[in-house]
Amino acid sequence: MNGAESLLTTLTANGIEVCFTNPGTSEMHFVAALDEVEGIRCVLCLFEGVLSGAADGYARMARKPASTLLHLGPGLGNALANIHNARKGDIPMVNIVGDHATYHLEYDAPLTADIEGIAAPVSHWVYTSKHADDIARDAAEAVRQAGIGQIATLMLPADVSWGDNSNGPEGAVTVAPPATVPASLIDEAVARLQSGKNCMLMIGGREVDSNRGLMLSRIGKACGARVGTDTFPARVARGAGTAVLERLPYLAELAIDSIKDVEELILIGAKAPVSFFAYPNVPSAIAAEGCEQLRLAGPNDDIDQVLETLLERLDAIDVEPDVQPLEIPEPPSGDLDANSVALSLTHYLPENAVVVDEAITSGLAIFPLSVTAQPHDWLNQTGGSIGWGLPAAVGAAIACPERKVVCLEGDGSAMYTIQSLWTMARENLDITVVIFNNRKYSILEMEFARTGARGGTPGPKAASTLDISGPDMDFVAMAQGMGVQASRATTAEEFNRQFEQALQVSGPCLIDAIVPTLF
Amino acid sequence: MNGAESLLTTLTANGIEVCFTNPGTSEMHFVAALDEVEGIRCVLCLFEGVLSGAADGYARMARKPASTLLHLGPGLGNALANIHNARKGDIPMVNIVGDHATYHLEYDAPLTADIEGIAAPVSHWVYTSKHADDIARDAAEAVRQAGIGQIATLMLPADVSWGDNSNGPEGAVTVAPPATVPASLIDEAVARLQSGKNCMLMIGGREVDSNRGLMLSRIGKACGARVGTDTFPARVARGAGTAVLERLPYLAELAIDSIKDVEELILIGAKAPVSFFAYPNVPSAIAAEGCEQLRLAGPNDDIDQVLETLLERLDAIDVEPDVQPLEIPEPPSGDLDANSVALSLTHYLPENAVVVDEAITSGLAIFPLSVTAQPHDWLNQTGGSIGWGLPAAVGAAIACPERKVVCLEGDGSAMYTIQSLWTMARENLDITVVIFNNRKYSILEMEFARTGARGGTPGPKAASTLDISGPDMDFVAMAQGMGVQASRATTAEEFNRQFEQALQVSGPCLIDAIVPTLF
Repeated sequence: MNGAESLLTTLTANGIEVCFTNPGTSEMHFVAALDEVEGIRCVLCLFEGVLSGAADGYARMARKPASTLLHLGPGLGNALANIHNARKGDIPMVNIVGDHATYHLEYDAPLTADIEGIAAPVSHWVYTSKHADDIARDAAEAVRQAGIGQIATLMLPADVSWGDNSNGPEGAVTVAPPATVPASLIDEAVARLQSGKNCMLMIGGREVDSNRGLMLSRIGKACGARVGTDTFPARVARGAGTAVLERLPYLAELAIDSIKDVEELILIGAKAPVSFFAYPNVPSAIAAEGCEQLRLAGPNDDIDQVLETLLERLDAIDVEPDVQPLEIPEPPSGDLDANSVALSLTHYLPENAVVVDEAITSGLAIFPLSVTAQPHDWLNQTGGSIGWGLPAAVGAAIACPERKVVCLEGDGSAMYTIQSLWTMARENLDITVVIFNNRKYSILEMEFARTGARGGTPGPKAASTLDISGPDMDFVAMAQGMGVQASRATTAEEFNRQFEQALQVSGPCLIDAIVPTLF
Repeated sequence: MNGAESLLTTLTANGIEVCFTNPGTSEMHFVAALDEVEGIRCVLCLFEGVLSGAADGYARMARKPASTLLHLGPGLGNALANIHNARKGDIPMVNIVGDHATYHLEYDAPLTADIEGIAAPVSHWVYTSKHADDIARDAAEAVRQAGIGQIATLMLPADVSWGDNSNGPEGAVTVAPPATVPASLIDEAVARLQSGKNCMLMIGGREVDSNRGLMLSRIGKACGARVGTDTFPARVARGAGTAVLERLPYLAELAIDSIKDVEELILIGAKAPVSFFAYPNVPSAIAAEGCEQLRLAGPNDDIDQVLETLLERLDAIDVEPDVQPLEIPEPPSGDLDANSVALSLTHYLPENAVVVDEAITSGLAIFPLSVTAQPHDWLNQTGGSIGWGLPAAVGAAIACPERKVVCLEGDGSAMYTIQSLWTMARENLDITVVIFNNRKYSILEMEFARTGARGGTPGPKAASTLDISGPDMDFVAMAQGMGVQASRATTAEEFNRQFEQALQVSGPCLIDAIVPTLF
């Protein structure tokens, strides 16, 4: 058994079922091994940013990591932005990066690069396998590292791949369970929640599932605390029957105002809230100056245990949680904008759908308006690097073939990883993509004003860099060019009809929604 | 004057005229400054891999660096692959990477990343400016570093950008001239060239211009040495009237065979030839074991001085160089393939065109067949990271608005940075793009066999990862979706007509050439 075969066998023994790939010459023995080892689905992407974003979306929905296969330093570089996003969301990923044969590196061939150096800033664990005899052991370690919510990046030199592994593959490794939160910390949280002060519980982490949300709501009601999520939780259960949870606003000014009276902020999987960017004369920290913050649990701690303990300690087990009603609006009519899309989405969204939100400004409007739809999961951008949505939808659809995926995508952000559409078509993924085509970097127009640059009003050259009309992009043509069925909507009625149809199709569809800017 | 204005003023004082950009919130003061400082053209790209490749193509043709503007670590990550390519070609580049305000970093906002860590593997010089008072000085240093054929990456924190620079801008810096090659080294080269042994002179570096080629040819004839370039010189003057230069083959087996009799290999700007990848049982070094190699000049040494000195020392000034004749074939007819495209290209190519070659397998066929065309420059992929061609064409067209740019691009490689087409349309760049649409990663089919994986024959899963049909890509639709005029050619006659028309248009056109695989 060669190194590549022992590597793949080890991955499958550890429950890794999908490899998102864009290989090159140095990975040919890995590619060959796909036909020798059962149990791994290989999904080809035309650009590495697609595959790392897909690995992120997959892991969020499958609750376990996928593998990537990348071609040397530049392939890893192309994947970097979406690995960054996964890292910020504490999403597990096992990256396999092909490298030149160990003995070839000294010759400094064109593709030679400091791959470990490129990997380190976006990985929790980085290792270069040295010998075919070691690769299965190293892959097992990568799986173990990823299993605790981390990015593990393992370099696979070509000779390690093609050499004979006399040790054979590794079996299933033991992944550390989520860490138990010390009783003393829970005592402290209980004391604060019973202090009579103005308290808020903020939940985050890899997933705020329905059960966690409902437990949090009971706890909040029992002790009079506000309950909410951070701005961009990686995955949150929403819709009818899920708990009513606040969402921290994106805009620092609004976020600061929203929690200005909170004296005790208790963080469960969530990070201390901070402004997404710095602005002149706006504080970086969102909580008020006197607010005490307690990090009760990190994203890799046992959040269920924390919530269950609080439920008991605060006598909240029998408290009725506040839940969202099922409120389905009529389909909208007239002008098409983010608000009418929100109504249409809420009307037509099937139960158990997965919504992937990278609609940027439009998404900020749609999120609150769609909370009473049928129960669904909502995936957010966790690292701020755009070009995540379409790939994440690819990964989510592969993880959950029985669920409809709806991808809400800005026109600007779509263009970073537009190649995702081809993989959607190739794999016939059940995804409805809505492009919010406002022909602007609309968020940047807003941000320009917020930074106060040039008094908040861009001059002609600045304005041109925020404007992506001229030429206007035709996402229908681009989608069709990559084999995805597509249509354009300019009114709410057109959108309703196309959206309803797209949801009925089992496979990818794209709607190019021509909308005005919101701000 | 704020930091951003002093930075831009310093760049323009140092001859930087173009900034390829994809900004975000942290760069808004830089963007605002574009309207305050005269003399910089800002070219918006929809993806950072486009802009770094464009900066590479620009610098090759303008013989001076462009600036980029990138948004934090992930933006730099997206640009990384094409920065790698530029670095491997010793092409200068000044990267400006926005970062959070210095005081904001400790809050670990979503986009916070180790930007210096990401920059280091692809940069010769990395620096984070600490204060608005320093930014002009730091920018001047970046220009100085880039000026010697290097990648200079300067981080611009948002508060350094918006803060007041009480020192004002810097003027023109002195860039070190190319290093003089010591007389002793030239003596050594002369002795070897006169040794009676089998000698070869191999030239490389940023540019093999017509004059250098002709000098090399004279020198080779005077002393009986073979003359050639490495496989992928960054920029080489070709066509009628340019010197006859061998090109080292891409395939290691052929390259080894081609220089197996060479006893003395003298490198002028070129690196010691090595196999692009490692293969089982194929040597990494291309030169024969007994071959002596002399690195007479590196890419940043004074190559003209070396050649002029050799010309004198070897009595070659009056030697007639071997030059390419003007041999224009008839336009081809019948089937369309790489060979017929080569004939059509050679027939129609206008004088002084710039050919950007990322046609991968098709390009290997076209290069030798087009050498007797009208004089032109040919740009090659220097770092092996694909997705370079379309962006490099953008940069070349901006550097040379009076020259026709022809971009030969593989279908697979086109998809890494397909967003380039939008910038071509937006800036109305005079580029004819030819996509070699063979619906394969054809090079990888060949490489699979060469690596000997699975006996050289891919199984069904491996084969599917090398095949990019299903769905077939429609580059006409994609181009039109981004505002670029496009057509499809399936016969040589169709190609001739479309190519001739495209060359007559002043602006971007794309031909989707449906061709068979070559191997």
